[in-house]
Amino acid sequence: MTTANDIYKTLADLNITLPPISVPAAAYVPYAQTGHLIFLSGNIAKKDGQVWVGQLGKNISLDEGKAAARVVAIGLLGTLHAALAATGKDLNHVSRIVKVMSLVNSTADFTDQHLVTNGASELLGQVFGPVVGAHARSAFGVAQLPMGACVEIEMIVEVGN
Amino acid sequence: MTTANDIYKTLADLNITLPPISVPAAAYVPYAQTGHLIFLSGNIAKKDGQVWVGQLGKNISLDEGKAAARVVAIGLLGTLHAALAATGKDLNHVSRIVKVMSLVNSTADFTDQHLVTNGASELLGQVFGPVVGAHARSAFGVAQLPMGACVEIEMIVEVGN
Amino acid sequence: MTTANDIYKTLADLNITLPPISVPAAAYVPYAQTGHLIFLSGNIAKKDGQVWVGQLGKNISLDEGKAAARVVAIGLLGTLHAALAATGKDLNHVSRIVKVMSLVNSTADFTDQHLVTNGASELLGQVFGPVVGAHARSAFGVAQLPMGACVEIEMIVEVGN
Repeated sequence: MTTANDIYKTLADLNITLPPISVPAAAYVPYAQTGHLIFLSGNIAKKDGQVWVGQLGKNISLDEGKAAARVVAIGLLGTLHAALAATGKDLNHVSRIVKVMSLVNSTADFTDQHLVTNGASELLGQVFGPVVGAHARSAFGVAQLPMGACVEIEMIVEVGN
Repeated sequence: MTTANDIYKTLADLNITLPPISVPAAAYVPYAQTGHLIFLSGNIAKKDGQVWVGQLGKNISLDEGKAAARVVAIGLLGTLHAALAATGKDLNHVSRIVKVMSLVNSTADFTDQHLVTNGASELLGQVFGPVVGAHARSAFGVAQLPMGACVEIEMIVEVGN
Repeated sequence: MTTANDIYKTLADLNITLPPISVPAAAYVPYAQTGHLIFLSGNIAKKDGQVWVGQLGKNISLDEGKAAARVVAIGLLGTLHAALAATGKDLNHVSRIVKVMSLVNSTADFTDQHLVTNGASELLGQVFGPVVGAHARSAFGVAQLPMGACVEIEMIVEVGN
Protein backbone atom coordinates (compact mmCIF):
# COMPACT_ATOMS: atom_id res chain seq x y z
CA MET A 1 0.00 0.00 0.00
CA THR A 2 1.42 3.38 -0.98
CA THR A 3 -0.45 6.49 0.00
CA ALA A 4 0.17 10.21 0.26
CA ASN A 5 1.34 9.48 3.80
CA ASP A 6 3.46 6.50 2.99
CA ILE A 7 5.38 5.43 6.09
CA TYR A 8 8.35 4.28 4.04
CA LYS A 9 8.67 7.71 2.45
CA THR A 10 8.57 9.25 5.93
CA LEU A 11 11.30 6.86 7.05
CA ALA A 12 13.39 7.80 4.02
CA ASP A 13 12.84 11.50 4.73
CA LEU A 14 14.12 10.87 8.25
CA ASN A 15 17.14 9.03 6.80
CA ILE A 16 16.11 5.90 8.67
CA THR A 17 17.04 2.50 7.27
CA LEU A 18 15.14 -0.29 8.97
CA PRO A 19 17.27 -3.14 10.27
CA PRO A 20 16.22 -6.74 9.63
CA ILE A 21 14.06 -8.56 12.15
CA SER A 22 15.77 -8.82 15.52
CA VAL A 23 17.04 -12.24 16.44
CA PRO A 24 16.12 -13.05 20.05
CA ALA A 25 19.02 -13.77 22.37
CA ALA A 26 17.14 -16.72 23.80
CA ALA A 27 14.25 -19.22 23.57
CA TYR A 28 11.51 -16.95 22.31
CA VAL A 29 10.40 -15.17 19.14
CA PRO A 30 10.56 -11.51 18.05
CA TYR A 31 6.78 -11.05 18.04
CA ALA A 32 3.45 -12.78 18.48
CA GLN A 33 0.18 -11.71 16.90
CA THR A 34 -3.24 -12.29 18.41
CA GLY A 35 -6.20 -10.88 16.52
CA HIS A 36 -5.38 -7.32 15.49
CA LEU A 37 -2.62 -6.95 18.08
CA ILE A 38 1.08 -7.61 17.57
CA PHE A 39 3.11 -8.00 20.74
CA LEU A 40 6.76 -7.20 20.06
CA SER A 41 9.38 -8.69 22.36
CA GLY A 42 11.58 -6.40 24.40
CA ASN A 43 14.46 -5.19 22.19
CA ILE A 44 17.71 -4.05 23.75
CA ALA A 45 19.80 -1.12 22.54
CA LYS A 46 22.67 -1.83 20.17
CA LYS A 47 25.43 0.36 18.78
CA ASP A 48 27.75 -0.58 15.92
CA GLY A 49 26.30 -4.09 15.98
CA GLN A 50 27.13 -4.63 19.66
CA VAL A 51 24.95 -4.44 22.76
CA TRP A 52 24.93 -0.82 23.96
CA VAL A 53 26.14 -1.47 27.49
CA GLY A 54 25.79 0.96 30.36
CA GLN A 55 23.64 2.47 33.04
CA LEU A 56 21.92 5.83 33.22
CA GLY A 57 23.22 7.79 36.18
CA LYS A 58 26.55 6.01 35.96
CA ASN A 59 28.20 5.90 32.53
CA ILE A 60 25.43 6.75 30.03
CA SER A 61 24.29 10.36 29.70
CA LEU A 62 20.70 11.47 29.24
CA ASP A 63 21.41 12.34 25.60
CA GLU A 64 23.02 8.96 24.99
CA GLY A 65 20.10 7.21 26.67
CA LYS A 66 17.64 9.10 24.52
CA ALA A 67 19.61 8.17 21.39
CA ALA A 68 19.63 4.54 22.56
CA ALA A 69 15.85 4.59 23.01
CA ARG A 70 15.48 5.98 19.47
CA VAL A 71 17.67 3.20 18.11
CA VAL A 72 15.58 0.59 19.91
CA ALA A 73 12.39 2.05 18.43
CA ILE A 74 13.91 1.83 14.93
CA GLY A 75 14.81 -1.79 15.65
CA LEU A 76 11.24 -2.48 16.75
CA LEU A 77 9.98 -0.97 13.47
CA GLY A 78 12.31 -3.30 11.57
CA THR A 79 10.78 -6.27 13.36
CA LEU A 80 7.28 -4.86 12.92
CA HIS A 81 7.87 -4.48 9.18
CA ALA A 82 8.91 -8.14 8.98
CA ALA A 83 5.93 -9.22 11.10
CA LEU A 84 3.53 -7.40 8.81
CA ALA A 85 5.24 -8.67 5.66
CA ALA A 86 4.64 -12.23 6.89
CA THR A 87 0.91 -11.63 6.39
CA GLY A 88 1.20 -9.59 3.20
CA LYS A 89 0.99 -6.24 4.94
CA ASP A 90 3.38 -3.39 5.67
CA LEU A 91 3.87 -0.48 8.05
CA ASN A 92 1.14 1.50 6.32
CA HIS A 93 -1.35 -0.97 7.80
CA VAL A 94 -0.49 0.02 11.36
CA SER A 95 -3.69 1.53 12.77
CA ARG A 96 -2.30 2.39 16.20
CA ILE A 97 0.83 2.20 18.27
CA VAL A 98 -1.02 1.06 21.38
CA LYS A 99 1.52 0.73 24.14
CA VAL A 100 5.21 1.17 24.84
CA MET A 101 6.98 -0.21 27.91
CA SER A 102 10.45 1.19 28.43
CA LEU A 103 12.99 -0.29 30.81
CA VAL A 104 15.85 2.05 31.58
CA ASN A 105 18.96 0.58 33.22
CA SER A 106 19.23 3.03 36.11
CA THR A 107 21.20 3.75 39.24
CA ALA A 108 19.17 4.33 42.39
CA ASP A 109 19.58 8.08 41.81
CA PHE A 110 18.58 8.47 38.15
CA THR A 111 15.03 9.83 37.76
CA ASP A 112 14.76 10.86 34.09
CA GLN A 113 13.48 7.59 32.63
CA HIS A 114 10.63 9.53 30.97
CA LEU A 115 13.08 11.81 29.13
CA VAL A 116 15.21 8.86 28.00
CA THR A 117 12.11 7.12 26.68
CA ASN A 118 11.10 10.20 24.70
CA GLY A 119 13.81 9.16 22.25
CA ALA A 120 11.51 6.31 21.26
CA SER A 121 8.19 8.09 21.65
CA GLU A 122 9.21 11.08 19.56
CA LEU A 123 10.44 8.82 16.78
CA LEU A 124 7.14 6.94 16.76
CA GLY A 125 5.30 10.25 16.56
CA GLN A 126 7.47 11.42 13.65
CA VAL A 127 6.96 8.18 11.73
CA PHE A 128 3.27 7.49 12.39
CA GLY A 129 1.93 10.99 13.10
CA PRO A 130 -0.08 12.36 16.01
CA VAL A 131 -3.02 9.95 15.71
CA VAL A 132 -1.64 6.52 14.83
CA GLY A 133 1.59 7.24 16.66
CA ALA A 134 -0.04 8.41 19.93
CA HIS A 135 0.65 5.63 22.39
CA ALA A 136 0.12 4.77 26.03
CA ARG A 137 3.40 4.28 27.86
CA SER A 138 5.14 3.21 31.02
CA ALA A 139 8.80 3.95 31.69
CA PHE A 140 10.78 2.99 34.73
CA GLY A 141 14.23 2.29 36.08
CA VAL A 142 15.38 -1.32 36.29
CA ALA A 143 18.28 -2.71 38.32
CA GLN A 144 19.92 -4.29 35.29
CA LEU A 145 19.13 -5.58 31.76
CA PRO A 146 20.13 -8.63 29.68
CA MET A 147 23.76 -8.37 28.54
CA GLY A 148 24.08 -5.08 30.38
CA ALA A 149 22.11 -3.06 27.81
CA CYS A 150 21.25 0.51 28.79
CA VAL A 151 17.65 0.43 27.45
CA GLU A 152 15.07 -2.24 26.58
CA ILE A 153 11.68 -1.46 25.03
CA GLU A 154 8.67 -3.61 24.16
CA MET A 155 5.65 -2.51 22.15
CA ILE A 156 2.04 -3.47 21.38
CA VAL A 157 0.73 -2.47 17.95
CA GLU A 158 -2.75 -2.60 16.41
CA VAL A 159 -3.00 -3.62 12.76
CA GLY A 160 -5.85 -2.45 10.56
CA ASN A 161 -7.53 -4.42 7.80
CA MET B 1 -26.03 5.53 32.57
CA THR B 2 -27.26 5.49 36.16
CA THR B 3 -28.09 2.17 37.74
CA ALA B 4 -28.68 0.77 41.21
CA ASN B 5 -24.94 0.15 41.26
CA ASP B 6 -23.88 3.47 39.84
CA ILE B 7 -20.10 3.78 40.05
CA TYR B 8 -20.31 7.54 40.58
CA LYS B 9 -22.54 7.03 43.61
CA THR B 10 -20.01 4.53 44.97
CA LEU B 11 -17.22 7.05 44.42
CA ALA B 12 -19.25 9.71 46.24
CA ASP B 13 -19.94 7.28 49.10
CA LEU B 14 -16.18 6.76 49.36
CA ASN B 15 -15.64 10.54 49.36
CA ILE B 16 -13.57 10.22 46.21
CA THR B 17 -13.41 13.13 43.78
CA LEU B 18 -11.90 12.11 40.46
CA PRO B 19 -9.07 14.29 39.21
CA PRO B 20 -9.02 15.46 35.58
CA ILE B 21 -7.22 13.40 32.97
CA SER B 22 -3.53 13.07 33.76
CA VAL B 23 -1.18 15.07 31.56
CA PRO B 24 1.79 12.93 30.52
CA ALA B 25 5.21 14.21 31.51
CA ALA B 26 6.52 13.41 28.05
CA ALA B 27 5.84 12.51 24.39
CA TYR B 28 2.95 10.09 24.82
CA VAL B 29 -0.76 10.09 25.64
CA PRO B 30 -2.68 9.14 28.78
CA TYR B 31 -4.42 6.15 27.17
CA ALA B 32 -4.91 4.23 23.94
CA GLN B 33 -7.95 2.14 23.07
CA THR B 34 -7.88 -0.91 20.83
CA GLY B 35 -11.14 -2.77 20.38
CA HIS B 36 -12.72 -3.24 23.81
CA LEU B 37 -9.47 -2.65 25.67
CA ILE B 38 -8.19 0.64 27.04
CA PHE B 39 -4.48 0.71 27.89
CA LEU B 40 -3.79 3.39 30.50
CA SER B 41 -0.30 4.85 30.69
CA GLY B 42 1.69 4.43 33.87
CA ASN B 43 0.63 7.13 36.34
CA ILE B 44 3.01 8.24 39.07
CA ALA B 45 1.97 9.10 42.62
CA LYS B 46 1.32 12.73 43.48
CA LYS B 47 0.63 14.50 46.77
CA ASP B 48 -0.61 18.07 47.10
CA GLY B 49 -0.13 18.52 43.36
CA GLN B 50 3.54 17.52 43.46
CA VAL B 51 5.25 14.26 42.57
CA TRP B 52 5.24 12.02 45.66
CA VAL B 53 8.96 11.44 45.85
CA GLY B 54 10.60 8.66 47.80
CA GLN B 55 11.58 5.03 48.04
CA LEU B 56 10.04 2.17 49.97
CA GLY B 57 12.56 0.77 52.43
CA LYS B 58 14.27 4.15 52.66
CA ASN B 59 12.03 7.13 53.35
CA ILE B 60 8.48 5.97 52.51
CA SER B 61 6.68 3.69 54.96
CA LEU B 62 4.46 0.78 53.98
CA ASP B 63 1.36 2.76 54.99
CA GLU B 64 2.49 5.76 52.96
CA GLY B 65 3.23 3.52 49.97
CA LYS B 66 -0.19 1.94 50.21
CA ALA B 67 -1.78 5.40 50.36
CA ALA B 68 0.27 6.44 47.34
CA ALA B 69 -0.92 3.39 45.39
CA ARG B 70 -4.52 4.28 46.27
CA VAL B 71 -3.99 7.83 45.03
CA VAL B 72 -2.54 6.54 41.76
CA ALA B 73 -5.56 4.28 41.27
CA ILE B 74 -7.89 7.25 41.78
CA GLY B 75 -5.85 9.18 39.21
CA LEU B 76 -6.17 6.29 36.77
CA LEU B 77 -9.95 6.33 37.27
CA GLY B 78 -9.97 10.05 36.47
CA THR B 79 -8.20 9.34 33.20
CA LEU B 80 -10.43 6.33 32.53
CA HIS B 81 -13.52 8.50 33.06
CA ALA B 82 -12.20 10.99 30.50
CA ALA B 83 -11.28 8.20 28.07
CA LEU B 84 -14.79 6.76 28.26
CA ALA B 85 -16.44 10.19 27.99
CA ALA B 86 -14.58 10.70 24.70
CA THR B 87 -16.73 7.93 23.21
CA GLY B 88 -19.95 8.84 24.99
CA LYS B 89 -19.52 6.32 27.78
CA ASP B 90 -18.72 6.45 31.48
CA LEU B 91 -17.29 4.32 34.28
CA ASN B 92 -20.52 2.29 34.45
CA HIS B 93 -19.55 0.80 31.08
CA VAL B 94 -16.42 -0.79 32.49
CA SER B 95 -16.95 -4.54 32.13
CA ARG B 96 -13.66 -5.64 33.69
CA ILE B 97 -10.53 -4.27 35.26
CA VAL B 98 -8.27 -6.71 33.40
CA LYS B 99 -4.75 -6.06 34.56
CA VAL B 100 -2.75 -3.88 36.91
CA MET B 101 1.03 -3.51 36.78
CA SER B 102 2.51 -1.82 39.81
CA LEU B 103 6.05 -0.49 39.98
CA VAL B 104 7.22 0.19 43.51
CA ASN B 105 10.35 2.34 43.96
CA SER B 106 12.24 -0.02 46.27
CA THR B 107 15.55 -0.47 48.01
CA ALA B 108 17.25 -3.83 47.51
CA ASP B 109 15.83 -4.90 50.91
CA PHE B 110 12.15 -3.97 50.59
CA THR B 111 9.94 -7.00 49.86
CA ASP B 112 6.37 -5.80 50.46
CA GLN B 113 5.53 -4.56 46.96
CA HIS B 114 2.36 -6.69 47.06
CA LEU B 115 1.12 -4.95 50.21
CA VAL B 116 1.88 -1.50 48.82
CA THR B 117 -0.04 -2.36 45.66
CA ASN B 118 -3.06 -3.49 47.68
CA GLY B 119 -3.74 0.22 48.16
CA ALA B 120 -4.72 0.30 44.48
CA SER B 121 -6.27 -3.16 44.25
CA GLU B 122 -8.53 -2.68 47.26
CA LEU B 123 -9.75 0.65 45.91
CA LEU B 124 -10.60 -0.95 42.57
CA GLY B 125 -12.50 -3.68 44.41
CA GLN B 126 -14.45 -1.13 46.44
CA VAL B 127 -15.37 0.90 43.37
CA PHE B 128 -16.14 -1.84 40.85
CA GLY B 129 -17.10 -4.75 43.14
CA PRO B 130 -15.83 -8.34 43.31
CA VAL B 131 -16.60 -9.28 39.70
CA VAL B 132 -15.79 -6.29 37.49
CA GLY B 133 -13.07 -5.14 39.88
CA ALA B 134 -11.28 -8.51 40.10
CA HIS B 135 -8.05 -8.01 38.20
CA ALA B 136 -4.87 -9.85 37.30
CA ARG B 137 -1.80 -8.14 38.66
CA SER B 138 1.96 -7.96 38.79
CA ALA B 139 3.84 -5.93 41.37
CA PHE B 140 7.57 -5.56 41.71
CA GLY B 141 10.37 -3.37 42.97
CA VAL B 142 12.06 -1.02 40.55
CA ALA B 143 15.41 0.72 40.96
CA GLN B 144 13.95 4.18 40.39
CA LEU B 145 10.95 5.93 38.79
CA PRO B 146 10.45 9.07 36.67
CA MET B 147 10.90 12.22 38.77
CA GLY B 148 11.67 10.07 41.78
CA ALA B 149 8.05 9.00 42.37
CA CYS B 150 7.49 6.28 44.97
CA VAL B 151 4.88 4.34 42.96
CA GLU B 152 3.83 4.06 39.31
CA ILE B 153 0.86 1.98 38.12
CA GLU B 154 -0.52 1.15 34.68
CA MET B 155 -3.83 -0.56 33.93
CA ILE B 156 -5.70 -2.42 31.18
CA VAL B 157 -9.50 -2.10 31.22
CA GLU B 158 -12.22 -3.85 29.22
CA VAL B 159 -15.18 -1.73 28.13
CA GLY B 160 -18.61 -3.24 27.53
CA ASN B 161 -21.10 -2.19 24.90
CA MET C 1 -10.34 -32.89 24.21
CA THR C 2 -7.74 -35.59 23.64
CA THR C 3 -5.71 -35.57 20.47
CA ALA C 4 -2.53 -37.12 19.15
CA ASN C 5 -0.77 -34.08 20.55
CA ASP C 6 -2.53 -34.03 23.88
CA ILE C 7 -0.87 -31.49 26.17
CA TYR C 8 -1.60 -33.56 29.26
CA LYS C 9 0.24 -36.53 27.76
CA THR C 10 3.18 -34.24 27.00
CA LEU C 11 3.15 -33.00 30.60
CA ALA C 12 3.10 -36.61 31.83
CA ASP C 13 5.98 -37.50 29.51
CA LEU C 14 7.91 -34.60 31.05
CA ASN C 15 7.05 -35.89 34.55
CA ILE C 16 5.28 -32.63 35.29
CA THR C 17 2.40 -32.55 37.74
CA LEU C 18 0.46 -29.32 37.57
CA PRO C 19 -0.08 -27.56 40.88
CA PRO C 20 -3.52 -26.20 41.78
CA ILE C 21 -4.42 -22.64 40.90
CA SER C 22 -2.12 -20.15 42.61
CA VAL C 23 -3.66 -18.20 45.47
CA PRO C 24 -2.70 -14.53 45.21
CA ALA C 25 -0.82 -13.08 48.16
CA ALA C 26 -3.02 -10.01 48.08
CA ALA C 27 -6.18 -8.25 46.84
CA TYR C 28 -6.30 -9.52 43.27
CA VAL C 29 -7.13 -12.68 41.33
CA PRO C 30 -4.94 -15.27 39.59
CA TYR C 31 -6.17 -14.41 36.10
CA ALA C 32 -8.61 -12.29 34.11
CA GLN C 33 -10.00 -13.17 30.70
CA THR C 34 -11.04 -10.64 28.07
CA GLY C 35 -12.21 -12.00 24.75
CA HIS C 36 -9.77 -14.68 23.63
CA LEU C 37 -7.00 -13.47 25.91
CA ILE C 38 -6.23 -14.69 29.42
CA PHE C 39 -3.98 -12.39 31.47
CA LEU C 40 -2.24 -14.40 34.18
CA SER C 41 -1.04 -12.55 37.27
CA GLY C 42 2.63 -12.48 38.08
CA ASN C 43 3.56 -15.73 39.89
CA ILE C 44 6.57 -15.84 42.17
CA ALA C 45 8.96 -18.78 42.44
CA LYS C 46 8.36 -21.31 45.21
CA LYS C 47 10.41 -24.25 46.45
CA ASP C 48 9.14 -26.95 48.83
CA GLY C 49 5.98 -24.91 49.34
CA GLN C 50 7.88 -21.80 50.45
CA VAL C 51 8.76 -18.63 48.57
CA TRP C 52 12.07 -19.20 46.76
CA VAL C 53 13.95 -16.27 48.25
CA GLY C 54 17.13 -14.81 46.81
CA GLN C 55 18.78 -12.59 44.26
CA LEU C 56 20.66 -13.44 41.08
CA GLY C 57 24.22 -12.17 41.30
CA LYS C 58 24.15 -12.53 45.09
CA ASN C 59 22.94 -15.87 46.45
CA ILE C 60 21.09 -17.57 43.56
CA SER C 61 23.12 -19.13 40.75
CA LEU C 62 22.21 -18.98 37.07
CA ASP C 63 21.21 -22.65 37.14
CA GLU C 64 19.05 -22.13 40.22
CA GLY C 65 17.45 -19.09 38.63
CA LYS C 66 16.68 -21.03 35.48
CA ALA C 67 15.15 -23.82 37.57
CA ALA C 68 13.10 -21.24 39.45
CA ALA C 69 11.80 -19.77 36.16
CA ARG C 70 10.81 -23.28 35.04
CA VAL C 71 8.93 -23.85 38.30
CA VAL C 72 7.10 -20.54 37.87
CA ALA C 73 6.06 -21.53 34.33
CA ILE C 74 4.68 -24.82 35.63
CA GLY C 75 2.76 -22.89 38.26
CA LEU C 76 1.35 -20.60 35.57
CA LEU C 77 0.21 -23.68 33.62
CA GLY C 78 -1.57 -24.94 36.75
CA THR C 79 -3.44 -21.65 36.97
CA LEU C 80 -4.08 -21.64 33.22
CA HIS C 81 -5.53 -25.15 33.42
CA ALA C 82 -7.93 -23.99 36.17
CA ALA C 83 -8.82 -20.84 34.20
CA LEU C 84 -9.69 -22.90 31.15
CA ALA C 85 -11.60 -25.52 33.17
CA ALA C 86 -13.83 -22.72 34.47
CA THR C 87 -15.19 -22.31 30.94
CA GLY C 88 -15.27 -26.01 30.05
CA LYS C 89 -11.94 -25.97 28.24
CA ASP C 90 -8.46 -27.30 28.90
CA LEU C 91 -4.83 -26.71 27.94
CA ASN C 92 -5.42 -28.27 24.51
CA HIS C 93 -7.51 -25.20 23.65
CA VAL C 94 -4.52 -22.87 24.01
CA SER C 95 -3.96 -21.42 20.54
CA ARG C 96 -0.94 -19.28 21.40
CA ILE C 97 1.30 -18.38 24.27
CA VAL C 98 1.35 -14.69 23.34
CA LYS C 99 3.63 -12.95 25.80
CA VAL C 100 5.84 -13.63 28.77
CA MET C 101 7.18 -10.92 31.09
CA SER C 102 9.92 -12.10 33.40
CA LEU C 103 11.15 -10.17 36.41
CA VAL C 104 14.47 -11.38 37.72
CA ASN C 105 15.54 -10.24 41.20
CA SER C 106 19.00 -8.95 40.27
CA THR C 107 21.99 -7.20 41.71
CA ALA C 108 23.27 -4.19 39.75
CA ASP C 109 25.91 -6.48 38.21
CA PHE C 110 23.84 -9.45 37.03
CA THR C 111 23.16 -9.37 33.27
CA ASP C 112 21.87 -12.86 32.40
CA GLN C 113 18.15 -12.27 32.89
CA HIS C 114 17.53 -13.72 29.41
CA LEU C 115 19.24 -17.00 30.33
CA VAL C 116 17.35 -17.27 33.62
CA THR C 117 14.07 -16.70 31.78
CA ASN C 118 14.89 -19.45 29.29
CA GLY C 119 13.94 -21.86 32.07
CA ALA C 120 10.35 -20.76 31.51
CA SER C 121 10.50 -20.26 27.74
CA GLU C 122 12.02 -23.66 27.05
CA LEU C 123 9.39 -25.37 29.18
CA LEU C 124 6.63 -23.59 27.27
CA GLY C 125 8.22 -24.70 24.00
CA GLN C 126 8.42 -28.31 25.20
CA VAL C 127 4.80 -28.35 26.34
CA PHE C 128 3.11 -26.43 23.52
CA GLY C 129 5.52 -26.98 20.63
CA PRO C 130 7.24 -24.55 18.28
CA VAL C 131 4.09 -22.88 16.95
CA VAL C 132 1.65 -22.49 19.84
CA GLY C 133 4.51 -22.20 22.33
CA ALA C 134 6.42 -19.48 20.42
CA HIS C 135 5.96 -16.35 22.51
CA ALA C 136 7.04 -12.73 22.60
CA ARG C 137 8.99 -11.92 25.73
CA SER C 138 10.59 -9.28 27.87
CA ALA C 139 13.01 -10.09 30.68
CA PHE C 140 14.75 -7.65 32.97
CA GLY C 141 16.36 -7.21 36.35
CA VAL C 142 14.28 -5.76 39.16
CA ALA C 143 15.52 -4.27 42.43
CA GLN C 144 13.42 -6.61 44.54
CA LEU C 145 10.28 -8.80 44.40
CA PRO C 146 7.34 -9.48 46.74
CA MET C 147 8.42 -11.62 49.71
CA GLY C 148 11.97 -11.61 48.37
CA ALA C 149 11.29 -14.11 45.58
CA CYS C 150 14.08 -14.63 43.07
CA VAL C 151 11.83 -14.69 39.97
CA GLU C 152 8.32 -13.49 39.06
CA ILE C 153 6.67 -14.16 35.69
CA GLU C 154 3.38 -13.08 34.16
CA MET C 155 1.87 -14.39 30.93
CA ILE C 156 -0.74 -13.56 28.28
CA VAL C 157 -2.38 -16.53 26.53
CA GLU C 158 -4.72 -16.77 23.55
CA VAL C 159 -7.51 -19.35 23.74
CA GLY C 160 -9.00 -20.90 20.63
CA ASN C 161 -12.61 -21.89 20.11
